[in-house]
Amino acid sequence: MAMKQAATAAIRAFSSSVTSQSSPLVRHLHASAGSKKIVGVFYKANEYAAMNPNFVGCVEGSLGIREWLESQGHQYIVTDDKEGLNCELEKHIPDLHVLITTPFHPAYVTAERIKKAKNLELLLTAGIGSDHVDLNAAAAAGLTVAEVTGSNVVSVAEDELMRILILVRNFLPGHHQVIKGEWNVAGIAHRAYDLEGKTIGTVGAGRIGKLLLQRLKPFNCNLLYHDRLKIGPELEKQIGAKFEEDMDAMLPKCDVLVINTPLTDKTRGLFNKERIAKCKKGVLIVNNARGAIMDTEAVVDACNSGHIGGYSGDVWNPQPAPKDHPWRYMPNQAMTPHISGTTIDAQLRYAAGVKDMLDRYFKGQDFPAQNYIVKEGQLAPQYR
Amino acid sequence: MAMKQAATAAIRAFSSSVTSQSSPLVRHLHASAGSKKIVGVFYKANEYAAMNPNFVGCVEGSLGIREWLESQGHQYIVTDDKEGLNCELEKHIPDLHVLITTPFHPAYVTAERIKKAKNLELLLTAGIGSDHVDLNAAAAAGLTVAEVTGSNVVSVAEDELMRILILVRNFLPGHHQVIKGEWNVAGIAHRAYDLEGKTIGTVGAGRIGKLLLQRLKPFNCNLLYHDRLKIGPELEKQIGAKFEEDMDAMLPKCDVLVINTPLTDKTRGLFNKERIAKCKKGVLIVNNARGAIMDTEAVVDACNSGHIGGYSGDVWNPQPAPKDHPWRYMPNQAMTPHISGTTIDAQLRYAAGVKDMLDRYFKGQDFPAQNYIVKEGQLAPQYR
Repeated sequence: MAMKQAATAAIRAFSSSVTSQSSPLVRHLHASAGSKKIVGVFYKANEYAAMNPNFVGCVEGSLGIREWLESQGHQYIVTDDKEGLNCELEKHIPDLHVLITTPFHPAYVTAERIKKAKNLELLLTAGIGSDHVDLNAAAAAGLTVAEVTGSNVVSVAEDELMRILILVRNFLPGHHQVIKGEWNVAGIAHRAYDLEGKTIGTVGAGRIGKLLLQRLKPFNCNLLYHDRLKIGPELEKQIGAKFEEDMDAMLPKCDVLVINTPLTDKTRGLFNKERIAKCKKGVLIVNNARGAIMDTEAVVDACNSGHIGGYSGDVWNPQPAPKDHPWRYMPNQAMTPHISGTTIDAQLRYAAGVKDMLDRYFKGQDFPAQNYIVKEGQLAPQYR
Repeated sequence: MAMKQAATAAIRAFSSSVTSQSSPLVRHLHASAGSKKIVGVFYKANEYAAMNPNFVGCVEGSLGIREWLESQGHQYIVTDDKEGLNCELEKHIPDLHVLITTPFHPAYVTAERIKKAKNLELLLTAGIGSDHVDLNAAAAAGLTVAEVTGSNVVSVAEDELMRILILVRNFLPGHHQVIKGEWNVAGIAHRAYDLEGKTIGTVGAGRIGKLLLQRLKPFNCNLLYHDRLKIGPELEKQIGAKFEEDMDAMLPKCDVLVINTPLTDKTRGLFNKERIAKCKKGVLIVNNARGAIMDTEAVVDACNSGHIGGYSGDVWNPQPAPKDHPWRYMPNQAMTPHISGTTIDAQLRYAAGVKDMLDRYFKGQDFPAQNYIVKEGQLAPQYR
């Protein structure tokens, strides 16, 4: 892998911080906080685990923090078995103190599980997006919920731009021709376009949306964004995007629509049949935010009718997507499993972020303010 | 199609220029130049032709210039049948005056064909890249060869950036999982990376290479370029790319290598076994330039061994690629048929460019200087 070397500096910095923090002196200080039971739920890598020494985000990699945790006397259970009453996770719910989950293989932390988890104090998301946690129940139970804000925003923004291009340029039909031994340029070209000159709108211009807009700047598009908040005038000028206060007024203008809003009570099912109908006929939609922001069947119907000209994203409802999920079979989809935020680079960053928060937790210190999703019974503004 | 509307302004401007230039007065002036036999060789669109009114680059669309040509008394033959002694093109070789070809479905204009073409004066490439023409034979025969320089450089540069992301992010294995009803994040993630922080090198920084570098700027990569000429200091600073005088010294630095050089006697087979071995192990290669710049088998071997970690492009040797072309079957390929320069937007631009050059040809006027590939027995500098 060409990239292994490129990521080496990051893992080296990460490893050396492991070493320094598990020095005898520091270990002694931590031990005084008492032994904790920490459970991590990650996706399993099986034969892929050994293929990359930086693959820390899987069960086998365990975020690279096992030695550090155990050397301080903590217990660290890691599993991918997260569903049903007989799963491995369920066994540990009654006595775990900390639960680490990811959006890529989400352990759904329901009100029932929270009720059973008498020792639970802290829910950490390795990555960004904590909607797999019942945040209101967590707040009511006095739990802290935190994620590694910023850890994979670049990863997701890059992936969104890739998906925009894949749809606009009509990449997949061409690649499928190659695999099938065919050659039919017209079958691709009749709906392949340049991105230049098209109108791209993002619903949500938080960290990821802003990074996407910055990367779109040199493509000479017409950039629009809708958000609760207008971007500051200097950054707005630098990005060259126009604020649209009314989302429904923005939709019919967009050739390409990108969803960059968290999943909350307000955004669940936001793109239903009526709202999709407000989009331009043939609109291309990229959604790496959350699957449940879309009405699943409304997306299928619009892809079948051609009202949606292409749909690409890596988020599904539920995850993992079952074999019969209709988005697997709708026309003009460029879907993948939930992957954009778990590149090797992102894994190294969110593993480091989780380790930092655990360290602060053991020491009784606050987390970086932007990491909190639920703190002292209050939800972060974007989840309200 | 969302994009149809976006392209409407361009086609409208194009159509109105057709009208004004085929007015009675202008037609009279043109008619005095004598009737010409013009042959165009394009790919056939069949059922796709009617799906998009702006699809002018196919046989059926005929660059949208039939009415204009015929109204001036010229004969205009269009075909996709270009191979062998009994093909439609061959029938017209003896008496055609102008041959319009494209790189997407190249009519190979050999020395033999040039010898037979007693009336031939002008070879026009609808697009960019005239290596399907024996340029030395054309020069010796006193022909003019010209292409629509600039017509699809943005189209190709955008497509290259898409392919870089597809390889770096390991998109295709994820999409294939979706189609096959699978869900295995680890199978993708173990070799998915951010583009940020990686080293990208382009071999060739002409019009397309520069546009690619400009679009890569916000991704915070380490950008390198090798070319005959150093980019001017102001543009180099704006792009933020570093000049590498010695290509072989650049190769081992690059995580991603992009080929942006024309196919000439010097670049044919440039990336053979020895040169690929100089690249970093696991290098990702994007080649939208010309297939014959690579040694076909050397690429296959390096993809099989893992020395090349991913290969994506839309150019093959020959074209159309036969069913048994080994690049269809090598691992980690993200190939398509030759498509990047024939988006609908590009078609409208190169159709307009061909029309402009025909108009100048009828009037005995020079073409825009940058369009000439062979003029008065001389090859353009990039082909020498």
